Amino acid sequence: MAPRNKEIWLPDDPDKPRVVVIGAGFAGITLIKKLRDKPVNLVLIDRNNFHQFPPLFYQVATSGLEPDAISFPVRKMFKGYTNFLFRMASVEEVDTSAHRIYTDEGFVRYDYLIVATGSVTNFYGLAQVEKHAIGLKSIRESLDLRSLMLENLEKAAITTDEQERHRLTNVVIVGGGPAGVEMAGALAEYKKYVLPKDYPYFCDETMKIYLVEAGPRLLPAMSAAASGTTLSDLTGMGVEVMLQTAVKTYDGSTVDLGDNHQLAAATLVWTAGVKGNFPAGIDKAGILPGNRVAVDEFNRINGQPNIYAIGDVAGMPAAGYPNGHPMVAPAAIQQGEHLAANLMRQINGKPLQPFVYHNKGALATIGKKRAVADLGRWHFKGFFAWLIWSTVHLLSIIGFKNKLFVGLNWLGSYLSYDKGNRLIIRKYHRPMP
Amino acid sequence: MAPRNKEIWLPDDPDKPRVVVIGAGFAGITLIKKLRDKPVNLVLIDRNNFHQFPPLFYQVATSGLEPDAISFPVRKMFKGYTNFLFRMASVEEVDTSAHRIYTDEGFVRYDYLIVATGSVTNFYGLAQVEKHAIGLKSIRESLDLRSLMLENLEKAAITTDEQERHRLTNVVIVGGGPAGVEMAGALAEYKKYVLPKDYPYFCDETMKIYLVEAGPRLLPAMSAAASGTTLSDLTGMGVEVMLQTAVKTYDGSTVDLGDNHQLAAATLVWTAGVKGNFPAGIDKAGILPGNRVAVDEFNRINGQPNIYAIGDVAGMPAAGYPNGHPMVAPAAIQQGEHLAANLMRQINGKPLQPFVYHNKGALATIGKKRAVADLGRWHFKGFFAWLIWSTVHLLSIIGFKNKLFVGLNWLGSYLSYDKGNRLIIRKYHRPMP
Repeated sequence: MAPRNKEIWLPDDPDKPRVVVIGAGFAGITLIKKLRDKPVNLVLIDRNNFHQFPPLFYQVATSGLEPDAISFPVRKMFKGYTNFLFRMASVEEVDTSAHRIYTDEGFVRYDYLIVATGSVTNFYGLAQVEKHAIGLKSIRESLDLRSLMLENLEKAAITTDEQERHRLTNVVIVGGGPAGVEMAGALAEYKKYVLPKDYPYFCDETMKIYLVEAGPRLLPAMSAAASGTTLSDLTGMGVEVMLQTAVKTYDGSTVDLGDNHQLAAATLVWTAGVKGNFPAGIDKAGILPGNRVAVDEFNRINGQPNIYAIGDVAGMPAAGYPNGHPMVAPAAIQQGEHLAANLMRQINGKPLQPFVYHNKGALATIGKKRAVADLGRWHFKGFFAWLIWSTVHLLSIIGFKNKLFVGLNWLGSYLSYDKGNRLIIRKYHRPMP
Repeated sequence: MAPRNKEIWLPDDPDKPRVVVIGAGFAGITLIKKLRDKPVNLVLIDRNNFHQFPPLFYQVATSGLEPDAISFPVRKMFKGYTNFLFRMASVEEVDTSAHRIYTDEGFVRYDYLIVATGSVTNFYGLAQVEKHAIGLKSIRESLDLRSLMLENLEKAAITTDEQERHRLTNVVIVGGGPAGVEMAGALAEYKKYVLPKDYPYFCDETMKIYLVEAGPRLLPAMSAAASGTTLSDLTGMGVEVMLQTAVKTYDGSTVDLGDNHQLAAATLVWTAGVKGNFPAGIDKAGILPGNRVAVDEFNRINGQPNIYAIGDVAGMPAAGYPNGHPMVAPAAIQQGEHLAANLMRQINGKPLQPFVYHNKGALATIGKKRAVADLGRWHFKGFFAWLIWSTVHLLSIIGFKNKLFVGLNWLGSYLSYDKGNRLIIRKYHRPMP
């Protein structure tokens, strides 16, 4: 908490308008890239000094990738930009009347404000679950999960109690969207290829993997064909898929599914939902379901001419999307690109253009050589879908070195069936029971 | 803390003697590799589930390498060993009369005990320095240092106070041994190549690097030629080397060097000394300077026939080494190899052979294309010494993938002059003032 009158040092050009972007996710960085060399002062604020790549968090969590390979320093990304300043700070409040953003490090003045603050895990008010489960929304959570699962395996190697060994190694994944499906598939491979090498004294029944989904099918945002393939593939890989099942509570040891149905598991991964995440002071007049800030077709919040929201946090009702576009990277990137052009139109006194979302399809990987893809009217599965998935993700990762290292990791695990980053570098600190 | 009567699960062969090794450093893992397929039960205990490579900690701390590239999972290292069990636990006490090791997870019985617990940073009783400085003895400390230095740079970009900006960016490194020299050289390159790109608004005077050594020359364990080259190279790279200077105290903000001489620096890296680290219960009859356990020429502690110490923690007085051999990786590896052979001699009723240390020389890198090497009567410096240093270290890193990734990182930074891992993944938690 900084003193209210402390201003953050921003040595930029006083003759140009200052555009402040909060959030270094896909939406924010895309917008900034499009405004390079434009006659504006760009300021990016984020609590982290890096951009992260959420689609591969599950691979960090399951020891398949090092965290540094899917994180990219913000300052390196915008090296050589002469109209750009980065400031690492946590935003506490926005004062839209004074045009100021208050952070833990001081305040920043803005002429245009772009809220690109993304989303956080939605526990739907289940406080005990929130306390004991781990989400998959940051590189830190991914590392927490990696540590927790590996620590539990080590504890299972120490105990003489067979029941306790099952509880320590079992993992319950909640949420049948892409994150849950991909996590379940990667863990099933871990169980099949790594566990027998690392823990040869464990019995075959050690480590059960449950995938719990409240709705009637996995990957509800994809085609029925994709859902069916995913269900049969995961089941064939040994994952116990439980549809139309909801978690009531979790104490860090036992998952309560209601109807006297309980699962003993020391790890619960929560991927069952996200919600928009916006700073205090943003007009809440039009909050949409999913806690997203309502924006008009130009991404303006409540019609204000100098405050915009883009990405997961922005809810733009549109045909087919009454509560806003899907909370996925392509929508964030498209909004970032579009708003960059609109901002220049606004500054140049030209009329704004409405945003139109182009749905390029959906992908999910189930395991090595298995994935599902819905691309327009075409549906793919198996090896070809897996090649599409791998290519799209590799091309989307920022930076040559990160692409190379992720690619080499994938090649290595493709050839060896190994997951070599099983390191407990920081122990996970469990909440008190 | 586990109950006193809880025994750790060890499903090994009751007809063979159990050799318990504490510590997965160079000494411990070398011993275990040499005892593969021998008629003994091997048990390794370590608080971490990985082996780490200390010679490159400074490169993790200065954003040149990812932590996973110099860490290797213990279970992966000993994959396929049928006479090996690993247990992750922190040793609390050894009971040599009952032949038991007590840990935070329960106790372990042993027939032969190998203490390979290494060394920890020696702050020589300077409590305030210990509280506010960071050492370079673990991958976690390396990451703490990376976070602290990057956080301080980000804070320097926020403040409007020029003096405060200097304090935040200045780094004082204490200790002129290889760790301190290599850290100073890497930071000087960071200042020269990365800082102007990341913080173009900083003035040239931002970030001073001080290397403080109590003795009359840098690299006191190496030749006078190596010391001289190192001093002139570091000075030429902009490091302020202060010889015959000792730190009196440090409050997290100001380094007091006595005689009214003070340095303002938010980061103090302490590499000024190490001391042996052994568990409670080990006979302290013959502790040598440096807190090392006195061992005989067979690495036995106090002549006991079933308790040995190897590596940094073991002090074996020998000709030219009255307080034990140098606390370096080659000595640890040689003792691990030698003790493996002696253990088999002992089990087979044959006489033990005394350990003889082979000093293969000393190396230290100063920066890109600069190093010093003392190899027998030969002294090398510059590019050729740097090639020797790089080759020796690359070959010493465990695992093909780690060798490849470290090599690619080096190739990349050789070509680009960049240090790309400048990520604050976990913020450093400063001690309260």
